[in-house]
Amino acid sequence: MDMKKIFVIGAGRSASSLIKYLLDHAESNDWTVTIGDLSKEQIEEKTGKHPRSKAVVFNIHDEGERATNISEADLVISMLPASMHIEVAKDCLKFGKHLFTASYVSPEMRALDEEVKKKGLLFLNEIGLDPGIDHMSAMKIIHELKEREITPSAFYSWCGGLIAPESNDNPWGYKFTWNPRNVVLAGQGTARYIENGIYKYIPYNRIFTEIRRVEVEGHGVFEGYANRDSLSYRPLYGLDTIRTMLRGTLRNPVYCEAWDALIEVGLTDDSFVIEDADKMTYADLLNSFLPGKGSDLKARLTDLLDIDLSSPVIPLLEWIGIFSEKPVTLKSGTPAQLLQALLEEKWALKPGDKDMIVMQHHFVYKKDNVEKNLYSSLVVKGDDMVYTAMAKTVGLPLAIAARLMMQGKLNVSGVVIPVVKEIYEPVLAELASNGITFTDKEI
Amino acid sequence: MDMKKIFVIGAGRSASSLIKYLLDHAESNDWTVTIGDLSKEQIEEKTGKHPRSKAVVFNIHDEGERATNISEADLVISMLPASMHIEVAKDCLKFGKHLFTASYVSPEMRALDEEVKKKGLLFLNEIGLDPGIDHMSAMKIIHELKEREITPSAFYSWCGGLIAPESNDNPWGYKFTWNPRNVVLAGQGTARYIENGIYKYIPYNRIFTEIRRVEVEGHGVFEGYANRDSLSYRPLYGLDTIRTMLRGTLRNPVYCEAWDALIEVGLTDDSFVIEDADKMTYADLLNSFLPGKGSDLKARLTDLLDIDLSSPVIPLLEWIGIFSEKPVTLKSGTPAQLLQALLEEKWALKPGDKDMIVMQHHFVYKKDNVEKNLYSSLVVKGDDMVYTAMAKTVGLPLAIAARLMMQGKLNVSGVVIPVVKEIYEPVLAELASNGITFTDKEI
Repeated sequence: MDMKKIFVIGAGRSASSLIKYLLDHAESNDWTVTIGDLSKEQIEEKTGKHPRSKAVVFNIHDEGERATNISEADLVISMLPASMHIEVAKDCLKFGKHLFTASYVSPEMRALDEEVKKKGLLFLNEIGLDPGIDHMSAMKIIHELKEREITPSAFYSWCGGLIAPESNDNPWGYKFTWNPRNVVLAGQGTARYIENGIYKYIPYNRIFTEIRRVEVEGHGVFEGYANRDSLSYRPLYGLDTIRTMLRGTLRNPVYCEAWDALIEVGLTDDSFVIEDADKMTYADLLNSFLPGKGSDLKARLTDLLDIDLSSPVIPLLEWIGIFSEKPVTLKSGTPAQLLQALLEEKWALKPGDKDMIVMQHHFVYKKDNVEKNLYSSLVVKGDDMVYTAMAKTVGLPLAIAARLMMQGKLNVSGVVIPVVKEIYEPVLAELASNGITFTDKEI
Repeated sequence: MDMKKIFVIGAGRSASSLIKYLLDHAESNDWTVTIGDLSKEQIEEKTGKHPRSKAVVFNIHDEGERATNISEADLVISMLPASMHIEVAKDCLKFGKHLFTASYVSPEMRALDEEVKKKGLLFLNEIGLDPGIDHMSAMKIIHELKEREITPSAFYSWCGGLIAPESNDNPWGYKFTWNPRNVVLAGQGTARYIENGIYKYIPYNRIFTEIRRVEVEGHGVFEGYANRDSLSYRPLYGLDTIRTMLRGTLRNPVYCEAWDALIEVGLTDDSFVIEDADKMTYADLLNSFLPGKGSDLKARLTDLLDIDLSSPVIPLLEWIGIFSEKPVTLKSGTPAQLLQALLEEKWALKPGDKDMIVMQHHFVYKKDNVEKNLYSSLVVKGDDMVYTAMAKTVGLPLAIAARLMMQGKLNVSGVVIPVVKEIYEPVLAELASNGITFTDKEI
């Protein structure tokens, strides 16, 4: 039998653990792993020129290159931004190749389901961290409860990509381990969930104030804000009639209140471009947004927010430098882009920094007519700034699923997410052997 | 010489005065006026089957019908929504026809300028009320000041389509005389203006709270909120270096504060669709947006807004029925669409209702080293619910400009807005003879 080929598209920061796993398993499985990226340097940083690896400097928008590389592969793993998957998916369909991604299934992707099934292919999506590990670990519990004939009345699911306490040197308790643009635009659009049988909606201007306290034993207290859509997973989880379901994002205390201040000021707006931004300082930018006049920006801000100078949000805002005479470096950009440029400096991981993933599922149900709460929690720390907890938890589920597929152990087809036992059981088992384990507590 | 043909596209509520003027002048000028609309009834309501009128039931998206009617006309007037003008414009260019609209020049429209000039055509846009009368009346003052060698340091320009006090039977002081959807979505996106040489930005969550008091002598006090873009008119008005320029929209007192409450709640969100909306009441809808729980929606709302039950906004919110068990009638819709459906009932003009247009320009400048304020104000009332002040002030400038054009009195070509004397002078003069006159006061 021929040597099997895996084609990974994208060698960015979240691809490190994925690529490491595939190369670690390449020899024993007789795989070659081709990595396509715009930057050869970025590829080789991840592969270390491993003999089983092949670097392809490659532009996803070049149809010819895309077709050649996809047609030669047995399995394609796309680590591209979600919006770019669909072109890859169409090629995979054309050439009869399996496709794995860690992204949400788009309507366009979902529309391919029938054709994918017809060709006996597997397009496995949402097999990263969130979405990914969240689905798998939740489904494991939901199936176990079902076997015990327990129907949960409430399901809260939280996940956050944070910084480990030992590497936390800033008052936000946050550094970027994921696409910074997504962090800056987080919460735009109205969040939808259900609570006590009532649909609940939270608009952008309140999403970071209507937060909940989430305690994770041994790791303290976090704050959670609602994700955009907690409703559509009810049928996928088999929880169609559940009366409370809320998915959300965790942050360290005070982050949400301070971020809400930036929203209230207007600095997360992405709808218009400020020209000649490089002639401004960040204080000028803030001045343009604050009502009133005068050089005491802090007083004008506290007036606007109706808070005291002693408010805990002030040190956070001060720390990122929005009151400072630091020049804006972008020539032009939306307020959100100018804020992002500032934060990319401030919230950069340093060598040796450990990030931390925190996930918690909380189920409420009745057992023998007594209300019980099941907390299932996961905390994963990164090794360093390359093999981050984010890269591990996004990449390993993908990599493990890829191994299972290549070894012929996944007999599923269609456009799929990992809510079925056949996928989540072996993946969770191997994640556990890599130190990615949930701690359960029923009280 | 052949009889001249004017082709008016769109016979909606703002076309009544335009069509009346054109028909009133048709005999003496030997014109025929063809009116194209999807609804024959709507056309005949406006024309009364006048012998000089011709009704064409017509779908703007039918290329053939569009081409036939445009090719037969001498002048085309498009009253369509702004986004639909461009197809009409391309046909006008193709068949060598002049085009007039009351809409803002889109980038696509602007891009046609060179070709339009080359063919000696006039595509006159922004010749309604706002944009339209605002440009013309402002330019008249700016040119007069220039002749007196006066350079204004500040220019505030306000306009509102309101209800006349004698027809005002609701606490908002507002009824729809214009596209309701635009009213519901007003203010989305960040407003930009300049004040004392500093660019100022106001995000959506503050646009209805950072309001200004605008007094119009003899008509009382209004409140103004900033329009999206006050910056781009500086060069068009020849005010490139002006230190303060703000364009805004007028509302009656308390409207803005109450509208801000609807924004804060989330009811103007247009980004997601609520399914099975017809199974809800408006109280259910509000309940879904309010934090907390319990049946006392008013208490939960005042908590959220941090206001007392005695706040002046409460009667306004009560009056539109958001606390009521009134059923939602739309099968599905965005929150903004459900709110619009409610307001279309509540804010409907009744027979005999008079609406009222209020416009005020306020210039600040120095004369003989003394600071002066020039207030130039326009108040126009409607005749009834058909010949509204809105229809008059939008339609008459278009109609007058059309007459001038057909009589060969406008020797201008290109994609143009009415900031040049050759257009604004005769149009303003005839508007004045129709009772549309500004009152100036320098103090």
